[in-house]
Amino acid sequence: MAIVNGNYANLKESYLFADIANKVAAYAKANQDKKIIRMGIGDVTLPLAPVVVEAMAKAVAEMGVKETFRGYGPEQGYDFLREAIAAYYQSFGVSVDAKEIFVSDGAKSDCGNITDIFSNANTILIPDPVYPVYLDTNIMCGRKVIYMEGNPENGFLPMPPKDVKADIIYLCSPNNPTGAVYTKEQLEAWVAYAKANDSVILYDAAYESFVVDPTVPRSIFAIEGAKDCAIELCSMSKTAGFTGTRCGYTVVPLGLVRKNEDGVEMNLNKMWLRRQTTKFNGVPYITQRGAEAAFSPEGVKQCKEMVAYYLENARILVEAFNKLGFTFFGGVHSPYIWLQCPNGLGSWEFFDLLLEKFAIVGTPGVGFGKCGEGYFRLTGFGSHEDTIEAVNRLVEGFGK
Amino acid sequence: MAIVNGNYANLKESYLFADIANKVAAYAKANQDKKIIRMGIGDVTLPLAPVVVEAMAKAVAEMGVKETFRGYGPEQGYDFLREAIAAYYQSFGVSVDAKEIFVSDGAKSDCGNITDIFSNANTILIPDPVYPVYLDTNIMCGRKVIYMEGNPENGFLPMPPKDVKADIIYLCSPNNPTGAVYTKEQLEAWVAYAKANDSVILYDAAYESFVVDPTVPRSIFAIEGAKDCAIELCSMSKTAGFTGTRCGYTVVPLGLVRKNEDGVEMNLNKMWLRRQTTKFNGVPYITQRGAEAAFSPEGVKQCKEMVAYYLENARILVEAFNKLGFTFFGGVHSPYIWLQCPNGLGSWEFFDLLLEKFAIVGTPGVGFGKCGEGYFRLTGFGSHEDTIEAVNRLVEGFGK
Repeated sequence: MAIVNGNYANLKESYLFADIANKVAAYAKANQDKKIIRMGIGDVTLPLAPVVVEAMAKAVAEMGVKETFRGYGPEQGYDFLREAIAAYYQSFGVSVDAKEIFVSDGAKSDCGNITDIFSNANTILIPDPVYPVYLDTNIMCGRKVIYMEGNPENGFLPMPPKDVKADIIYLCSPNNPTGAVYTKEQLEAWVAYAKANDSVILYDAAYESFVVDPTVPRSIFAIEGAKDCAIELCSMSKTAGFTGTRCGYTVVPLGLVRKNEDGVEMNLNKMWLRRQTTKFNGVPYITQRGAEAAFSPEGVKQCKEMVAYYLENARILVEAFNKLGFTFFGGVHSPYIWLQCPNGLGSWEFFDLLLEKFAIVGTPGVGFGKCGEGYFRLTGFGSHEDTIEAVNRLVEGFGK
Repeated sequence: MAIVNGNYANLKESYLFADIANKVAAYAKANQDKKIIRMGIGDVTLPLAPVVVEAMAKAVAEMGVKETFRGYGPEQGYDFLREAIAAYYQSFGVSVDAKEIFVSDGAKSDCGNITDIFSNANTILIPDPVYPVYLDTNIMCGRKVIYMEGNPENGFLPMPPKDVKADIIYLCSPNNPTGAVYTKEQLEAWVAYAKANDSVILYDAAYESFVVDPTVPRSIFAIEGAKDCAIELCSMSKTAGFTGTRCGYTVVPLGLVRKNEDGVEMNLNKMWLRRQTTKFNGVPYITQRGAEAAFSPEGVKQCKEMVAYYLENARILVEAFNKLGFTFFGGVHSPYIWLQCPNGLGSWEFFDLLLEKFAIVGTPGVGFGKCGEGYFRLTGFGSHEDTIEAVNRLVEGFGK
């Protein structure tokens, strides 16, 4: 008798985006003359960079010719891409060996799959508010999850707890959904905590390319000692607009070891290699050529222009909220603005107000965890024109 | 203190392909005048079909233009592809709803990931010889694995055991590595066993497109009642030469239910949807357009020509082994020939003989499990010219 994984019964269904879609659809039907501006979007909107398109077109053509056709590639990615990613890290001063880099179809997959190499006996420390994947993937394994509270006092950047010994810690900086960014000193404190407790930090750096201040770390491996206690998950989704093209990478230090249930030390780089060679078959050759192009000098330049476009949208929002005297977080090294709902409104109350009064759609903060109640996520992923129009509506409406 | 998954320590390292590569390299160095023919290859060698290349080139161009750019797609695949796959099933008489189809980056990924939705308390039934992924992915979860023996008596097609109640059963037909194919009656017996025991069959149909006899099932869902007890894993790797392009699909029937550890019935289609939406972010848009084209009438025609090319190579091998009076399995509905090593040789002894005497490389059967000892896998994935030359060498050498 086949038995299914009962932990799935403990997952909460999220109706967040479905609820938003329903409310927006009802509003649109009742207000056909109004132009709705969508600022809740967590997806890129600009097309792929020209060098990426060119490289993928060439790769597609290669696949159609016997002499240049490629079959199975290495599960961990072609060397040409692993080396390009290592060089990219080097460009902002972080040394990563190509053998530490595992190319994948995206950070979401790796974030889910990385649970495989750890015992289910671990206690997991997760910030609240949070990207829901951290939580759900651990509920699926039946693991104990502890939350650390993000709040205005800590700037939505929780620091190591004094009284809790967590085994696995999820950090995301620049943060989704809050846009908050850890400083070097703060990450040093996390590395010190992880080393003291033999914990492992799973560091989500998906938004690293939005960091504009060179003193702000773009990688956990910018911190001394991190290679003894951290794995980094990164994505090309936001760096190069690859949300629909699918490529990410995970860095597992060559020397990272932890014990198993029997006290036997095991190497995590080797374990992840085994996981990926057994349960994964690599990223499409075509995608890998596109990714390689994105990390070329011209590719980096073109992708930076895309990121700058989104950051300018965020700046426009920041300027408006400063003018209105609203409290918010993020918006500088991040496409996300985490707004404290004005006048003490709850997340959904503010959602309704924004939709009904301004025809603007955002994301209720409570959708990212209970500490998100009373907050609201807006993003810079729309167009300049829409962002400016949204800001004009808000400044006019709230500025009175 | 982070604890790693100790089950990984129970995995056996496979040196099969590394050992082969080392032996071949040594031979090549010592015999630089000899042309080595590689018949061990499990990868396609023909380029992608023209309609696939055309569709992907178009999709790449779309991704470079704002108006046609695509960001995140549905995790389970675009409707255009799910519907094309449903229509493909219908073309050989099998009814599958598009909602039962989950598009993925390949059958290997799904084969590894499907373990997620089952409890680790299940007993797994696996054929020997076997595709190593079935075994390793279950060792990683610490599950109990029982083998069923493939042998000349059962034609390497093990039938349901009378004295064992297995919870999850792996079947692969046409089989890798043996090339053996279950008949409709045999699969009916498996479905009856699974229904009687509330088991779930994980049916690997990756080689379905090699089936040339319309009375041989190409899907477990050709069998009545299979939707109550089976999940099918399929791949475009061999159907359309997608080994380096990465696309597969898994069919989880809408009505398939099993109980969890607490006796609560859960729906497996919903569980897999939850797994995929949480731990996966979909297949590249470009790949999905290529896959859609492969399932178009012209695409099916072009892909069938590729399969026919490989099948003709297999036929040439079959003809030669018949002429030589060798015992073998497969080679008809499959690119694989599973040869009983002549003269009672062991798998590696025959490997050495073939390499040293004929400069032909194959795969020792023992690499696929202990029941593979004394057998040898040859494939039709090479070129016609090489296949014919290999056959000439063998007939001349062994025919004396």
